[in-house]
Amino acid sequence: MTLEVIILAAGQGTRMRSALPKVLHPVAGKAMLGHVIDAARELKPSKIHVVIGHGAELVRERHAAPDINFAVQAEQLGTGHAVAQAQPEVGEGSTVLVLYGDVPLIQASTLQRLLAQVTPEQIALLTVNLADPTGYGRIVRGADGAVQAIVEQKDASEAQKQIREGNTGILAVPGARLGDWLGRLSNSNAQGEYYLTDVIAMAVSDGLRVATEQPSGESEVLGANDRVQLAQLERFYQARQVEALMRAGATVLDPARLDVRGNVSVGKDVLLDVNVILEGNVELADGVQVGAHCVLKDCRIGAGTVIKPFSHIDGAELAADCDIGPYARLRPGTALADGVKVGNFVETKKAKIAAGSKVNHLSYIGDAEVGTNCNIGAGTITCNYDGVNKFKTVLGDDVFIGSNNSLVAPVTIGNGATTGAGSTVTQDVPDGALAVGRAKQRTIDTWKRPVKQ
Amino acid sequence: MTLEVIILAAGQGTRMRSALPKVLHPVAGKAMLGHVIDAARELKPSKIHVVIGHGAELVRERHAAPDINFAVQAEQLGTGHAVAQAQPEVGEGSTVLVLYGDVPLIQASTLQRLLAQVTPEQIALLTVNLADPTGYGRIVRGADGAVQAIVEQKDASEAQKQIREGNTGILAVPGARLGDWLGRLSNSNAQGEYYLTDVIAMAVSDGLRVATEQPSGESEVLGANDRVQLAQLERFYQARQVEALMRAGATVLDPARLDVRGNVSVGKDVLLDVNVILEGNVELADGVQVGAHCVLKDCRIGAGTVIKPFSHIDGAELAADCDIGPYARLRPGTALADGVKVGNFVETKKAKIAAGSKVNHLSYIGDAEVGTNCNIGAGTITCNYDGVNKFKTVLGDDVFIGSNNSLVAPVTIGNGATTGAGSTVTQDVPDGALAVGRAKQRTIDTWKRPVKQ
Amino acid sequence: MTLEVIILAAGQGTRMRSALPKVLHPVAGKAMLGHVIDAARELKPSKIHVVIGHGAELVRERHAAPDINFAVQAEQLGTGHAVAQAQPEVGEGSTVLVLYGDVPLIQASTLQRLLAQVTPEQIALLTVNLADPTGYGRIVRGADGAVQAIVEQKDASEAQKQIREGNTGILAVPGARLGDWLGRLSNSNAQGEYYLTDVIAMAVSDGLRVATEQPSGESEVLGANDRVQLAQLERFYQARQVEALMRAGATVLDPARLDVRGNVSVGKDVLLDVNVILEGNVELADGVQVGAHCVLKDCRIGAGTVIKPFSHIDGAELAADCDIGPYARLRPGTALADGVKVGNFVETKKAKIAAGSKVNHLSYIGDAEVGTNCNIGAGTITCNYDGVNKFKTVLGDDVFIGSNNSLVAPVTIGNGATTGAGSTVTQDVPDGALAVGRAKQRTIDTWKRPVKQ
Repeated sequence: MTLEVIILAAGQGTRMRSALPKVLHPVAGKAMLGHVIDAARELKPSKIHVVIGHGAELVRERHAAPDINFAVQAEQLGTGHAVAQAQPEVGEGSTVLVLYGDVPLIQASTLQRLLAQVTPEQIALLTVNLADPTGYGRIVRGADGAVQAIVEQKDASEAQKQIREGNTGILAVPGARLGDWLGRLSNSNAQGEYYLTDVIAMAVSDGLRVATEQPSGESEVLGANDRVQLAQLERFYQARQVEALMRAGATVLDPARLDVRGNVSVGKDVLLDVNVILEGNVELADGVQVGAHCVLKDCRIGAGTVIKPFSHIDGAELAADCDIGPYARLRPGTALADGVKVGNFVETKKAKIAAGSKVNHLSYIGDAEVGTNCNIGAGTITCNYDGVNKFKTVLGDDVFIGSNNSLVAPVTIGNGATTGAGSTVTQDVPDGALAVGRAKQRTIDTWKRPVKQ
Repeated sequence: MTLEVIILAAGQGTRMRSALPKVLHPVAGKAMLGHVIDAARELKPSKIHVVIGHGAELVRERHAAPDINFAVQAEQLGTGHAVAQAQPEVGEGSTVLVLYGDVPLIQASTLQRLLAQVTPEQIALLTVNLADPTGYGRIVRGADGAVQAIVEQKDASEAQKQIREGNTGILAVPGARLGDWLGRLSNSNAQGEYYLTDVIAMAVSDGLRVATEQPSGESEVLGANDRVQLAQLERFYQARQVEALMRAGATVLDPARLDVRGNVSVGKDVLLDVNVILEGNVELADGVQVGAHCVLKDCRIGAGTVIKPFSHIDGAELAADCDIGPYARLRPGTALADGVKVGNFVETKKAKIAAGSKVNHLSYIGDAEVGTNCNIGAGTITCNYDGVNKFKTVLGDDVFIGSNNSLVAPVTIGNGATTGAGSTVTQDVPDGALAVGRAKQRTIDTWKRPVKQ
Repeated sequence: MTLEVIILAAGQGTRMRSALPKVLHPVAGKAMLGHVIDAARELKPSKIHVVIGHGAELVRERHAAPDINFAVQAEQLGTGHAVAQAQPEVGEGSTVLVLYGDVPLIQASTLQRLLAQVTPEQIALLTVNLADPTGYGRIVRGADGAVQAIVEQKDASEAQKQIREGNTGILAVPGARLGDWLGRLSNSNAQGEYYLTDVIAMAVSDGLRVATEQPSGESEVLGANDRVQLAQLERFYQARQVEALMRAGATVLDPARLDVRGNVSVGKDVLLDVNVILEGNVELADGVQVGAHCVLKDCRIGAGTVIKPFSHIDGAELAADCDIGPYARLRPGTALADGVKVGNFVETKKAKIAAGSKVNHLSYIGDAEVGTNCNIGAGTITCNYDGVNKFKTVLGDDVFIGSNNSLVAPVTIGNGATTGAGSTVTQDVPDGALAVGRAKQRTIDTWKRPVKQ
């Protein structure tokens, strides 16, 4: 079976009160449309058609890809009309699956079950049993259980209103029939719109059966029309991600206070304390502990490394058994070997620090290479920038940098070298030497303290 | 119609286990009584009478205002007795609305609907339909739907206990009748108290009708008698505030983790990440992004400015497209022009920083004026305090301050001037000059490292 | 009555996907087994028998104590078999209470009620009324209300499945009968296991009565078989702890965002803002305010002290009216007297700071004694470490340390002494003197800025 997916993504989303087209609003940092495209791609379709309208250029720009065909719906005349904009591009023999750019939590596994139902004689409709079906089209079934019709809320009898099975709008049909059905849609209704839903009735009257499947949960088929609903989707999405991490072996101290915004893998016995945020590609090896209130983005953390509260890690690689934070900020290009310590109020950037070295307090280490077993004193700054160019600071192994040092790059400190507290180091320091760059202390015994002006 | 509001605020709140009178306990940082007074003021009453008792002096001190009349209830003998303390001050022709200082979430819109019902022949009672009415007085209605009586929980028959409409205690009556009714109250009951509720029965027996209105939700009429209930009110209040921000166009990544404690306005497409706290008067222009775990108080943030996690902003004005944090602390008197960057572990106070300037790391900039396009190196301190007086540091445009500098105020650094890393700058630096205030580096090759003592 | 408690703690917990035996997984930082042992100890038993199996050595190592007897269950052949491993050690005349190492929220008060029911003619079973009893063994009672049998889910009739009273597995029996009953257990069932539950039927058939008690809430008897359930227990536990703090007089701004992991005592009118974590032994005196996003561990905080957001306090004693943070990190050995201020990006460790002194910005104060009314300038570092040894910095009273100082220990600064900004202080400073250790500023007017390379 060849599959083609049509994703409706033309709506404005007025209630979002936003300059951004609705489908570009993010869930977990990724546009809703991006989530739907990703789910579609898992089905290995031959083509994905995205029907765009409001903000068409921006949507196209953000989601252009070789497997995506954009179809423009210049006027929003209903879901049937939207699908019709893409239909001419659909191959005759394909199965067509219709998805919605603002229903982002749909899962590929659900869609696979749905697609398995499509035959030349059968279309497949995703329905959902709802605690409160108000507002949904109801699925009316005959005595034999076969779907007979979909009745909209406003047209439903009191008995029909009791039906809790609702229409999600997601359906899959034989492409060979789709053009005919779309061509027969009418807009003789209160809204003056062409409804894709009417295709169901046509299929039934043409003698096809309507098979139904249900999502694993209601949240899969929820859409977002305003930011209150968007926030609900965000929370449903997060709950799903967090549960997956727990199933994979992470202890999560509060599932309601962990945010996953990307692809996270966890080893065994990872601990995630409250209010952690994981963004982008994050790999946490066995036994990693992430303290409360930490933000980790695009990083790999080695086994047994402990990250203390309030740390912010972005674009860094940490090996095993590092001791990080609290209040450590590791920026892109940071690479820490085994057992490195980076302590409070320390910032690193493009800093390669070898095994066992320590930067414990109040330092900025940028554009630097640090050897093994170094100790960098509190308040040390690598002066890597002259206002136009950036330069490198290189420390050998077993270097001891005194407190409050300014290491003016380019500069190299040899193996086993030492610098005095308060030094500004402008020249290279030989192996094993002591460098001091500070003034001698004077004492003025006759000093009078200033008085209040 | 002239309106006078009586707010009962005399209770001790023993279950609060507090040194503070109950009505002064805060919701969203404002005393419960303050919320009630604010709601009352929206109704434009001619006078607000606050009946005080426990902690009377403190309540008076905190809430004294020209439109407030305090009436003292020396002994707490019931709600009717409390209202009677204020009644002599009420004008004959006024409508009287009774509110409660420990029921802080009541909304003016609800009260306006209630007041619209009051006529010389009709009093108005706020009732509420409850999922669980246990403990509430039940509203007993006749076959015609008219309120006949209010039956307290302990006096209710089984049938009456099934009534889910409860008495909120909030009512509005023609002032002309109130004195008479209060005078006829009796304390012949188990508690020996004078109950305001008994006024309803008197009104009915005097031939008046009892009109009812309902609040928009149950939380509006909840009171706080202990800190568990106080925390519930806090959460209801926060949910209301956060939803309003979402409706106004802010994306809120977790509505349950945003706290609003003041007056917040948001432009379009503002993003509020998890665990943000907004206090006092906060204005966020279009496209502002506030990262996770930030605290913003009394500040205006310009369009497109991005505030990264763990930032703490208080009493600051930021123009457009600034890049702040993570871990930036902007204190009162900070004014940042367009495109300013303030980075990690940087504190500013009374600091006016012109467009395009950067203070990226580990600095303290206080009592300072900084020109355009300056770069202030990591670890820079403005030494603004001599132990008694504070002095100012002034930087021109295009100044480059090296790392780990101490700028000893009062001091002025000219346009285009540069300072060397590790310098202590005690004298003014002319335009375009380089100032260096550090010792020359010496190297001691014969240095022996200390040994373990 | 002599009481002996048998705690079943031999399970692996495969669904935890962990290297740790199940009962060692923590709730609020303490192993589940530890919670159960603590509850057992409150009952003052003569002995606690812990039946271990998977990870036996680690469990034994972590929980060895004089009152604990470990019994090894080499093969996991069911709960009855597990109890049988400990039974030979039980005294003839003891009452035996059976608990579970993975049911950690059980409360001693519940168990006391249960134990009060045990007589030579009566065993006691803890049952629980459940909203959804699916999966639980159902308590079948006769017309007289007496327990007749426990029917497992898979054996239950439709009528029995409607029973909402479930078996918790927690029971107390006369020890004199236990050996006989255990010896008669059979493993002729689908799982081939010996079920402790079968003891109930034996007791009934031996003519004993089965008394039942219920826990105060369902969470008391929940177990954790995977990390999703573990997280639920964590939340139930936290809710219980947080409510207790509110009842004791603390205002908690969001009960869902406060974590208590140890023993916390609060005075009157303590305020705990959102996302606070309290670990170990924490004492908060009257009026202490703990700001948002703070972590406090093993500390005592004096009356009226205010801790601002993002502070991290561990192993510290703070007296009254201190002003801490934001972003203060107080490490073990910090002792602050009344009215001390420690400000942003300041780290203290083994630092004794006397009344009224201030360390406001960007400093590291370690191995230090600071007198009264000192002011330590921004960017000051106590250079306490020479790479092998640690030394002490001592400041007298009324000392003023200029900004960006390096105080090279061992060093003593006398009463009333002052140091200049940017100084490295290597020698003691006499009382009242000024010490300056910095180079004179030079100005190079002919300086040319570097150009882009």
